[in-house]
Amino acid sequence: MAVVNEDFLNIKNDYLFSMIEEKKRDFKKNNPDTKIINLGIGDVSLPLVPTVINAMEKATKEMSKKETFRGYGIVQGYDFLIERILEVEYKRRNVNLEKDEIFIGSGSKSDLAGVSEIFSRNCKVALMDPVYPAYRDVNIMLGRNDITYLKGTEENNFIPEIPNEHIDIIYLCSPNNPTGTVLTRKQLELWVKYAKENNSVIFYDSVYEIFIDDEDIPHSIYEIEGAKEVAVEFRSFSKLAGFTGVRCSFVAIPKELKLYTKSGEEVDLNTLYRRRQSVKYGAAPYITQRGAEAIYSDEGQREIRENIKYYKENAKYMKQELEKIGFITYGGENSPYIWLKLPNGIDSWEFFDKLLNEVAVVGTPGVGFGNYGEGFFRLTAFSSKEDTKEAIDRITKSFK
Amino acid sequence: MAVVNEDFLNIKNDYLFSMIEEKKRDFKKNNPDTKIINLGIGDVSLPLVPTVINAMEKATKEMSKKETFRGYGIVQGYDFLIERILEVEYKRRNVNLEKDEIFIGSGSKSDLAGVSEIFSRNCKVALMDPVYPAYRDVNIMLGRNDITYLKGTEENNFIPEIPNEHIDIIYLCSPNNPTGTVLTRKQLELWVKYAKENNSVIFYDSVYEIFIDDEDIPHSIYEIEGAKEVAVEFRSFSKLAGFTGVRCSFVAIPKELKLYTKSGEEVDLNTLYRRRQSVKYGAAPYITQRGAEAIYSDEGQREIRENIKYYKENAKYMKQELEKIGFITYGGENSPYIWLKLPNGIDSWEFFDKLLNEVAVVGTPGVGFGNYGEGFFRLTAFSSKEDTKEAIDRITKSFK
Repeated sequence: MAVVNEDFLNIKNDYLFSMIEEKKRDFKKNNPDTKIINLGIGDVSLPLVPTVINAMEKATKEMSKKETFRGYGIVQGYDFLIERILEVEYKRRNVNLEKDEIFIGSGSKSDLAGVSEIFSRNCKVALMDPVYPAYRDVNIMLGRNDITYLKGTEENNFIPEIPNEHIDIIYLCSPNNPTGTVLTRKQLELWVKYAKENNSVIFYDSVYEIFIDDEDIPHSIYEIEGAKEVAVEFRSFSKLAGFTGVRCSFVAIPKELKLYTKSGEEVDLNTLYRRRQSVKYGAAPYITQRGAEAIYSDEGQREIRENIKYYKENAKYMKQELEKIGFITYGGENSPYIWLKLPNGIDSWEFFDKLLNEVAVVGTPGVGFGNYGEGFFRLTAFSSKEDTKEAIDRITKSFK
Repeated sequence: MAVVNEDFLNIKNDYLFSMIEEKKRDFKKNNPDTKIINLGIGDVSLPLVPTVINAMEKATKEMSKKETFRGYGIVQGYDFLIERILEVEYKRRNVNLEKDEIFIGSGSKSDLAGVSEIFSRNCKVALMDPVYPAYRDVNIMLGRNDITYLKGTEENNFIPEIPNEHIDIIYLCSPNNPTGTVLTRKQLELWVKYAKENNSVIFYDSVYEIFIDDEDIPHSIYEIEGAKEVAVEFRSFSKLAGFTGVRCSFVAIPKELKLYTKSGEEVDLNTLYRRRQSVKYGAAPYITQRGAEAIYSDEGQREIRENIKYYKENAKYMKQELEKIGFITYGGENSPYIWLKLPNGIDSWEFFDKLLNEVAVVGTPGVGFGNYGEGFFRLTAFSSKEDTKEAIDRITKSFK
């Protein structure tokens, strides 16, 4: 009898997303002529930049000719892309990583899941609350039910305290999804210190680092001394270059980072992840990797930063107008997310319904990110300027 | 202390591949002017067909404009591709599957790994020997060390007997990698019968089905009555349409297929795989899926079948010429692989060395696929016609 891996039964269906879709459908049925504006989804709206398009078209042409066709790729990723990542993402910030410490992937969701597999099912995991739900679900699927939630509240500016118990794997996300808050250099130093003292590993998700403006906010955890021994860094081209539908990402796994066998022997996470990828992953597509490489040209950098500026202006406008009518907001600086504090007594689904039914604007109820998200609401800056403006105008007219 | 998942320590490094690379490097150093011909790797040599290139170029253009840009995809895959798969791959063979029974992926390697995760680590697995090594490694990574190897020998034409013990998961690959042999309708019926009687699940890897010519050989396991209750089918565009560097695949998981909890309750594999994908997979890229869709147009079908014909002619030529000089061969019909029986007393690494050093041709030692591969050697038909001809000429001149 083929028995199921019962860890998979502990995952709930995606209630948040399906409930939002259901409510939208109902609203549309009853209001067929009203345009819903979606400030809920974390997906980009601007198309791929010309430099990326050109590179992908050129690579597609190469795939059409026998002389330049590329079959199976290199599981780790092509050197041409890894070298540019090392140069632009790291060396410019005085971080030195080697080529075999970068693994190209097809999105941070699968990268996060893949690295997590290499740790024992008995590892103690700490997540922030509120949190990106996939962190939790991946760990539950791997049989890790003993998850510690570190409370993010207004009092700590959504940056949880260093735990006073032992944790094996700590997920940090900065700039944070959903709260839009960021970890300063000083805070990150404390986390690295904690991880070193506890032989813990930090999963550092910095897929929104391109939104950072402040000098004091590290873009990479490796800007902190000693972090190579304790941190894996997850990066993505999804928000960086609008690759949500193209799929490209990378993970940095420094060779200094050691795991331990039960009997205390050291093993290399880097070596084991390479082994994992060679068995379970088929390499990122050539065309995709050429597209990703293109963002590191001068022209590519100029173009993607222009797009990021566009989203940042949305965030700034949203934050400013919502504060004008009395809302307290977090995030929206160094981040594409605005974390809205709801007026006393309104819960986050109630606010969702109100926003949808009164002004046809969709956001994400904070409680969908954990219990400590209750009383908050996430808005994203990824819509078009026009839609963002119209949504905020509708809100300010109705809620002031 | 972050403890490693010790199942990952049970995987050996890829000895086969790295040894082959090392021997090639040495040969090149000593013989810088000799052209090595590679009949070892299972990678295609013909470029993408024009219909696919056009579709991908068109989709890339769409990604460059705000009005037609596509961000995050649908995790299961786009309907436009799934509908064509249902029509061309299944309905034409009188197999009826529903849209939500097909999952688009990024290659069968990751699909095979993903489905396998949903089964208990205590499941008893049966693999053929010789076998595609990733089947084994994925199961070892999931903690399944109790693997039964079903012997494929000349006596059973490399089609193992139905086991007389209980097995939970059976991997079948037809046309087979590495032996090039195929399962007939009758044989497949016996396997489906066994699986039903034992509540087993068959992982049916038919990524080479496009090479099948014989009427009696099923292209899909669902051509066998009752197979929907017991089989998951893995398909890929890699060999079908030269997508080894593009990455697209699909898995069929019929809703009839049930797994069991330890206490005997039924659960849907289809539902659990959808849940797995939504947590751990980021959807296949839009451009890739448009490229895959294009092979199902009349022109696309004509073009890809022309490429397959080219490889089949290579296989036919190789088989015929090698048999002329006295080799016994398996496969090479309904398959891109030729499984060469070595003369008595020569082991497969010895033959590898001989072939490399005497005629500068590279193949794959049979023992790399398992103990029962010893005494055999795999050659592939995926090289160019010219290289294939030259390699075979060199071999026949030297070995007759």
